[in-house]
Amino acid sequence: MRNAIADLQRLLLELVRSINEVADRNIDVLMPGYTHMQRAQPVRFSHWLLSYAFYFKEDFDRFDEFGRRMNVLPLGSGALAGNPFNINRHKLAADLGFDGVSHNSMNVVSDRDFVVEFNFLCTLVAVHMSRLAEDLILYSTKEYNFIELSEEYTTGSSLMPQKRNPDSLELIRGITGPVFGQHCAILMTLKGLPSTYNKDLQCDKSGMFGVYDQMQMCLVLIGGIIQTMRVDEDRCLSSLGYEMLATDMAYYLVRRGIPFREAHHISGEVVAHSEKVKIPINKLTLEDLQEISPHFDETISRIWNYENSVEQYTVVGGTSRLSVQEQIRVLRAFVDGHVL
Amino acid sequence: MRNAIADLQRLLLELVRSINEVADRNIDVLMPGYTHMQRAQPVRFSHWLLSYAFYFKEDFDRFDEFGRRMNVLPLGSGALAGNPFNINRHKLAADLGFDGVSHNSMNVVSDRDFVVEFNFLCTLVAVHMSRLAEDLILYSTKEYNFIELSEEYTTGSSLMPQKRNPDSLELIRGITGPVFGQHCAILMTLKGLPSTYNKDLQCDKSGMFGVYDQMQMCLVLIGGIIQTMRVDEDRCLSSLGYEMLATDMAYYLVRRGIPFREAHHISGEVVAHSEKVKIPINKLTLEDLQEISPHFDETISRIWNYENSVEQYTVVGGTSRLSVQEQIRVLRAFVDGHVL
Amino acid sequence: MRNAIADLQRLLLELVRSINEVADRNIDVLMPGYTHMQRAQPVRFSHWLLSYAFYFKEDFDRFDEFGRRMNVLPLGSGALAGNPFNINRHKLAADLGFDGVSHNSMNVVSDRDFVVEFNFLCTLVAVHMSRLAEDLILYSTKEYNFIELSEEYTTGSSLMPQKRNPDSLELIRGITGPVFGQHCAILMTLKGLPSTYNKDLQCDKSGMFGVYDQMQMCLVLIGGIIQTMRVDEDRCLSSLGYEMLATDMAYYLVRRGIPFREAHHISGEVVAHSEKVKIPINKLTLEDLQEISPHFDETISRIWNYENSVEQYTVVGGTSRLSVQEQIRVLRAFVDGHVL
Amino acid sequence: MRNAIADLQRLLLELVRSINEVADRNIDVLMPGYTHMQRAQPVRFSHWLLSYAFYFKEDFDRFDEFGRRMNVLPLGSGALAGNPFNINRHKLAADLGFDGVSHNSMNVVSDRDFVVEFNFLCTLVAVHMSRLAEDLILYSTKEYNFIELSEEYTTGSSLMPQKRNPDSLELIRGITGPVFGQHCAILMTLKGLPSTYNKDLQCDKSGMFGVYDQMQMCLVLIGGIIQTMRVDEDRCLSSLGYEMLATDMAYYLVRRGIPFREAHHISGEVVAHSEKVKIPINKLTLEDLQEISPHFDETISRIWNYENSVEQYTVVGGTSRLSVQEQIRVLRAFVDGHVL
Repeated sequence: MRNAIADLQRLLLELVRSINEVADRNIDVLMPGYTHMQRAQPVRFSHWLLSYAFYFKEDFDRFDEFGRRMNVLPLGSGALAGNPFNINRHKLAADLGFDGVSHNSMNVVSDRDFVVEFNFLCTLVAVHMSRLAEDLILYSTKEYNFIELSEEYTTGSSLMPQKRNPDSLELIRGITGPVFGQHCAILMTLKGLPSTYNKDLQCDKSGMFGVYDQMQMCLVLIGGIIQTMRVDEDRCLSSLGYEMLATDMAYYLVRRGIPFREAHHISGEVVAHSEKVKIPINKLTLEDLQEISPHFDETISRIWNYENSVEQYTVVGGTSRLSVQEQIRVLRAFVDGHVL
Repeated sequence: MRNAIADLQRLLLELVRSINEVADRNIDVLMPGYTHMQRAQPVRFSHWLLSYAFYFKEDFDRFDEFGRRMNVLPLGSGALAGNPFNINRHKLAADLGFDGVSHNSMNVVSDRDFVVEFNFLCTLVAVHMSRLAEDLILYSTKEYNFIELSEEYTTGSSLMPQKRNPDSLELIRGITGPVFGQHCAILMTLKGLPSTYNKDLQCDKSGMFGVYDQMQMCLVLIGGIIQTMRVDEDRCLSSLGYEMLATDMAYYLVRRGIPFREAHHISGEVVAHSEKVKIPINKLTLEDLQEISPHFDETISRIWNYENSVEQYTVVGGTSRLSVQEQIRVLRAFVDGHVL
Repeated sequence: MRNAIADLQRLLLELVRSINEVADRNIDVLMPGYTHMQRAQPVRFSHWLLSYAFYFKEDFDRFDEFGRRMNVLPLGSGALAGNPFNINRHKLAADLGFDGVSHNSMNVVSDRDFVVEFNFLCTLVAVHMSRLAEDLILYSTKEYNFIELSEEYTTGSSLMPQKRNPDSLELIRGITGPVFGQHCAILMTLKGLPSTYNKDLQCDKSGMFGVYDQMQMCLVLIGGIIQTMRVDEDRCLSSLGYEMLATDMAYYLVRRGIPFREAHHISGEVVAHSEKVKIPINKLTLEDLQEISPHFDETISRIWNYENSVEQYTVVGGTSRLSVQEQIRVLRAFVDGHVL
Repeated sequence: MRNAIADLQRLLLELVRSINEVADRNIDVLMPGYTHMQRAQPVRFSHWLLSYAFYFKEDFDRFDEFGRRMNVLPLGSGALAGNPFNINRHKLAADLGFDGVSHNSMNVVSDRDFVVEFNFLCTLVAVHMSRLAEDLILYSTKEYNFIELSEEYTTGSSLMPQKRNPDSLELIRGITGPVFGQHCAILMTLKGLPSTYNKDLQCDKSGMFGVYDQMQMCLVLIGGIIQTMRVDEDRCLSSLGYEMLATDMAYYLVRRGIPFREAHHISGEVVAHSEKVKIPINKLTLEDLQEISPHFDETISRIWNYENSVEQYTVVGGTSRLSVQEQIRVLRAFVDGHVL
């Protein structure tokens, strides 16, 4: 069990490292940031990718807490009443590398929380991977084309020779089901079970082993996929549109003293006007804009620049270059701070 | 959220304190310890009851880890790209009582792990309560009669005036379902969800509030039930049978140098003989015993004493008086070490 | 798949037949009927046992509906668009023993509802078995002792030679977890999955096979347990108490024109009085009773008869001998009406 | 309960009718059919949309079976033993519109399978809707743009005035979580519960009502979304590419006597060659093709026609016009065959 935890933690660290490297390498790439799967604002590709690293970092931390908490010697509890032969359990614990001993023998023979918690932590990792896989599957479609997956992680179609299917990613997304299933299984088995040992408890170790194998496989897979994928910088950039800078237009007005609510409203009118007259928002004349609001002047033209747009988000956790580099630094320190 | 966690932690501490007090008060009471719901060995009532306190102690610890880990300022993340107005998020965090700031704005607007984890920790508490409730329901039946529940926590029957139904305990056992259901709900909603904000995320706060209310109610209820129940010492004692000391007989032989395997076999033969001749195991003559094994001598008569039996389990976590008192001490220090 | 369904249906029929036989054989046995795990009213042992047969009968019916509904040829759907080679799918279906053909090729390559539904039906059977197992485990404890399990279905303890653990029943109860887990697994995998084939779908056949194996094992086990258990008629009878006829006392008053509400109240007062003066309810004198209510006369003594009590429930579905025999007849006709 | 079922059935019928109408109206529209979210083969838009109608049709059938099976009078079962007042339950059932009576009173007071089954059927409908919602969300993104959702079913962004978020569809997709959660809740509550009534059973009606409300809302929503969405025929068509006819090329070779395996291999080589020389597959010269395989002749040029491609799938359930019209006919007969 301690080995299983350590192993998954190692794979989580490696995954964070892989993400970090790919983020570092592609820090120049701009792409649409989405909410509701609709293009929202330009962001750095690395900012998006790193958003997942922080999930996996927290997963690592959870395993850490769990590993420390459960590192307690259960031996010496007998069938339920304890051991009658004057064993020094503290010494035994120290000898076997445990941090302490369990405090109640009837609790120990009954307790399967370590299975529950292991399966839960794996389920949460699986959910995180399923979301990353979903994004990667989307971004590798013909429709998005932001990334191209390495051939080792795709397969051809048995019927359609032109296809490259992201099988590995789909498998990772799908495996959330079985892992979650095992989590539900043990909780269901434990519910309402009388105390101490009951044979019901037998049916759940095998589930845990399966979960471990699946997690191991998926963590290795997704790390490899990320390391080997090709990011299509041009395609990412060409997916941006100036209407995605409507928020910047509102911010521009806010900086000139317009209340946000009104600024947002004006910005919305400009977008609507642009759609109506079928002229891209950045090609509207200053006169057009001033007709909508007198607060526009010629400086508005400076906002039509994606790089400038992302660079204004200098806040901690923002998408500016420095903010993203700071994220990379934090994650590198995290990875380096743990022995692999 | 921080308040909800603190509140449940406070109730968990109070529950541990209630269990501790009742265990302290009833330390003399001996009862059958069960495995497989079959009478196994005599244990102290307090040993059994305390076995649950350690579940709730660990639940408290889990909430503690969770509370610390999630105490991070999410504000300043904007819609997804961050905040462009040069806000000092570290200062804001300090002002609002957070331990740090979130590191990636796209992660923050997408992350509902705090809901998942809150619901999970509550589910685990609920499972623990369901097991304790099952034991208490059993022990308050006419068939066991180890405890009598206070009238405030039972209700009469609409049709059968002689009944006192343990409604509160059944409710606690049953509520595991809805709490677990909310846990499944949010995991299902998150699975495969693309990154950043999607409206899907809206459906899960309400679930969390319901879970909190149910947990609060159940923790208060079960604490009250334990504080007010009457333990029937005589009935507990009279449920013991000398055949439950068959293990002691084996241990007796082991102490005389017989390998455990053989000792267990001899002990089994004695039990079988006792059942066959319909003489209680402690009434068999020394001759009877010696016919089965020459290793018995007159000292065997000393094992027919329940108090002696439990007192041999002096190991840490065992059911001897000192071991149980040590558990009470550990738990008291735990409760006292945290401000309520 | 069709074979798996047919096989489980056959085992369900055999289980119903086993229950029916045991119910028939023990129709004279009276025992306490419980609600809230508190002794409520006398019922026939067979009435209790048959209550489970009707669950399994309905499980059979559900498999029947499912089997008919899914007996549709999926072949000829190609990768997603259909088959271009002029195949007569209706003829193919007839040749392969299907009742019809699927109507939309994109639906077919995407549809895993047959896995969902199979796992769900098995989960429901497992939940039913878990409840029956819980009752049987309880009834075979030293505390209840209504039944004795055959040695083939119990195991001795490795440490405690006097024990006979109901391992098979605990396993059956526990396996609800893994079966339910597989049900959750496939639903989780399917949620939000885009249409047609995705590799995610691969991870769920293996789960279904495991479920089938577990169900088969459990259905065989529980059938064997029921057929071979010994019902302890005396112990069942001696667990009855006259206070369980308090409802009959209320009915007695109702028959004399007292409104039910008032009758129930009077009956409750008699129970309370009996407990207070520590005289069994059937030993209270007519004077005692009349002090509580003038509606009692000497005919009240006739209600202190368990056989009479159960015989008044002559309604369809009641616990009188004729009503129980009618249940047995209904179930026998059901079993005989289906080829095993 | 009967009303709830009838109401959801009515909404399912209306949804099938809406899908049918939109499919009928857009039968000319060709679009890419996807597997693994990769463009696979051209299909009719209607073929894709109708693939969901068959899910909802089967959902309707499941509710039908369920409604018939559960339409059984439970009244007259008393607390557990039956009713002692000579009630004619058959007559009562007939008067109240039930098809029959329950057969065992202890079963009835304990049975919550109608909650389980109702919640399960709703979960399955929710999973189907989540998949349709996922497709619709994808198809309404800027990247796909196959459909445009009506403004009533989208909302603007609070920060980004240019956006139209498919909130309704996301809500439908997300609600699968809570509905599934209720399904898990009741199963968890029932697991291992002793027979007859236990207070545990109280916590699950409220869940069922919530599920009903959510289903009703979602079914109305998704029906409205489908009726009001605009299909962008040009955009659908322009997303097709001739490499999607690689399968047709293989079929072409098969029709000339080449074994499928080899045909598929040749077709794959052509695709690879086309990618390598960066010439669209349909622009390769006959010489180019014949260099790869001598089985090509000038008739190969006839396959470069999307309409012809889909029209070859004339099999029942295929994507040819006649096959799709037959599906519409089947569904219309199904809807018309049931009174709304």
